[in-house]
Amino acid sequence: MNPNPLVGAVIVKDNKILGIGHHEKYGENHAEINAILDAKNKNNDIENSTIYVNLEPCSHFGKTPPCADAIIKNKFKKVVIGCLDSNEKVAGNGIKKLKEAKIEVVENILEEECRKLNEVFFHYINSKKPFMVMKYAMTIDGKIATVIGKSKWITSEKSREHAHLFRKKYSAIMVGINTIIEDNPTLNCRIKDNPKNPIRIILDSDLKIDLKSNICQTSKEIKTYIATIKSDKNLEKKKNLENLGIEIIETSAKDNKVDLKELTKILGEEKNIDSVLIEGGSILHAALLKEKLIDKALIYIAPKIFGGLNAKTPISGEGIENPDNAIKLIDGKIENIGEDLFLEYYLKYN
Amino acid sequence: MNPNPLVGAVIVKDNKILGIGHHEKYGENHAEINAILDAKNKNNDIENSTIYVNLEPCSHFGKTPPCADAIIKNKFKKVVIGCLDSNEKVAGNGIKKLKEAKIEVVENILEEECRKLNEVFFHYINSKKPFMVMKYAMTIDGKIATVIGKSKWITSEKSREHAHLFRKKYSAIMVGINTIIEDNPTLNCRIKDNPKNPIRIILDSDLKIDLKSNICQTSKEIKTYIATIKSDKNLEKKKNLENLGIEIIETSAKDNKVDLKELTKILGEEKNIDSVLIEGGSILHAALLKEKLIDKALIYIAPKIFGGLNAKTPISGEGIENPDNAIKLIDGKIENIGEDLFLEYYLKYN
Repeated sequence: MNPNPLVGAVIVKDNKILGIGHHEKYGENHAEINAILDAKNKNNDIENSTIYVNLEPCSHFGKTPPCADAIIKNKFKKVVIGCLDSNEKVAGNGIKKLKEAKIEVVENILEEECRKLNEVFFHYINSKKPFMVMKYAMTIDGKIATVIGKSKWITSEKSREHAHLFRKKYSAIMVGINTIIEDNPTLNCRIKDNPKNPIRIILDSDLKIDLKSNICQTSKEIKTYIATIKSDKNLEKKKNLENLGIEIIETSAKDNKVDLKELTKILGEEKNIDSVLIEGGSILHAALLKEKLIDKALIYIAPKIFGGLNAKTPISGEGIENPDNAIKLIDGKIENIGEDLFLEYYLKYN
Repeated sequence: MNPNPLVGAVIVKDNKILGIGHHEKYGENHAEINAILDAKNKNNDIENSTIYVNLEPCSHFGKTPPCADAIIKNKFKKVVIGCLDSNEKVAGNGIKKLKEAKIEVVENILEEECRKLNEVFFHYINSKKPFMVMKYAMTIDGKIATVIGKSKWITSEKSREHAHLFRKKYSAIMVGINTIIEDNPTLNCRIKDNPKNPIRIILDSDLKIDLKSNICQTSKEIKTYIATIKSDKNLEKKKNLENLGIEIIETSAKDNKVDLKELTKILGEEKNIDSVLIEGGSILHAALLKEKLIDKALIYIAPKIFGGLNAKTPISGEGIENPDNAIKLIDGKIENIGEDLFLEYYLKYN
């Protein structure tokens, strides 16, 4: 369930850690409360201590009582905050409450880092749309498959394992129907430690999916949405898919395809999905970029050359004509993963 | 003229630098001699001093007398050498001579760095073929032009300036005829400080080049070769090109195109060209890779997306079918140039 920020808290007095805690999941104790409970469990006296927390303590009654009240009640001397909450129910009110109780407050101590840690949460809380992350792997000559469509493998095993972490990190995974037809993937999370399968979202405007595909055959175990266009056709197919546990999302048609803006709104507002990892193919990437719907890009580049005039590239579609109109990527971060490169960027639309 | 290694020498005694020198150009004083002359000009006594030099001192009479003899004659105590020469006329003989004269020799002190500094020289001296360097700039989605063929510009001004340094560094520049027809480039070196134009090599199997092109119009000032296939056709055109100062290189035909292996041999053995920068297009890159003729790749990646199913990628041709047969790039080095990435790799063929 969402929203669900990543928050940790540490209680310190006289250079000693008295308690630590983090927010585990939606509806359960916030980090501050867990840190207080941890200190009390250890019989530590927390009066006059400092609490460090990456996100502003809440001031409102949600699923749990306000953390600001607990901090005041427990007579903390000082609160050090990584960044403010931009959730309009909190937004500075937590700090105000603390200051009124004469507690010293240090704000925005590592603001950028703390905002980035919770970029999904902030994006979702403010826009009510999922944070959309495009992922692809290509060769150094820009190919995602050879001329005959083979793509196993482009990157090293190490990079492929690394990429699976994002299937755990983000709530859902999205692919186009061509990827299902060509690769017949399961789209599960195959990390060793504590895997968590993402919700699967298949874009299938004409409901072409094969009922025997791996997606359909595993949809009783893994939550699956198929997004298609509103239509009186395919009623039988829809019923069959629903019998397999798949939920159909219908949108208006835009150029005979699923309306991606409408879909994104449904995913955020109705399905409470805060983040989506998009794993191709190149047509879906192009369509989402055209609608300015991608927020972040994760790109693996392998030091290999496939060549080939007609080998596929990561982003197809119509493309832009004038280089000045290129979509820009900003705030790049680069990492070596074995011999491969891993790049992270944010999208910047004109 | 080649071969022409990059060599520097420093003379040191009692932690003081007594003289420095470098090898300026083919046929002139070697670095060691220039360092000795520098010390003498400054009235420094170099007896019993140490000379540091990145390449083994020569032992043979070439255009100049052997440096090993000069080191012995000047009574140096110690010689510290970055890496051995692999020129068969030198190869360990310089060191042997020094040791016989009871001079202390320290070898291969920074072997890898020193070999890399002179990678062109070592490659050329051993193979008699030019060191072939492919250069391209692409978007992060693997495009070298938009769907309508526009490529101005992909990278930033800073990267483009950076790229011009390689036109000075390498002896020649090579492009395919399509690049000439599409872009009408001059292929000169446009750096501000001390520019040096590379020799131009145009691959033009059917002699399609326009006599009014920028290449033809500047061939009196910049040495230009056009490589074509041996043929009795186009005699008039050949004469016209020669009248413009262009030199025609003829090779056997291979699949109705210039035989690239034969051409490379001619460039190295007959034209004394030690290094070639290849600046596209994607067909030429693919053809050279197929013949395993590229030694190094210089790749600029701009954080931009062009998209487009039919937008050109840096390497076209037939391509490989099975990912296991991909051409591999090794020893990668990465640098940020403004917002762009600059990658250097060596090619590794199966």
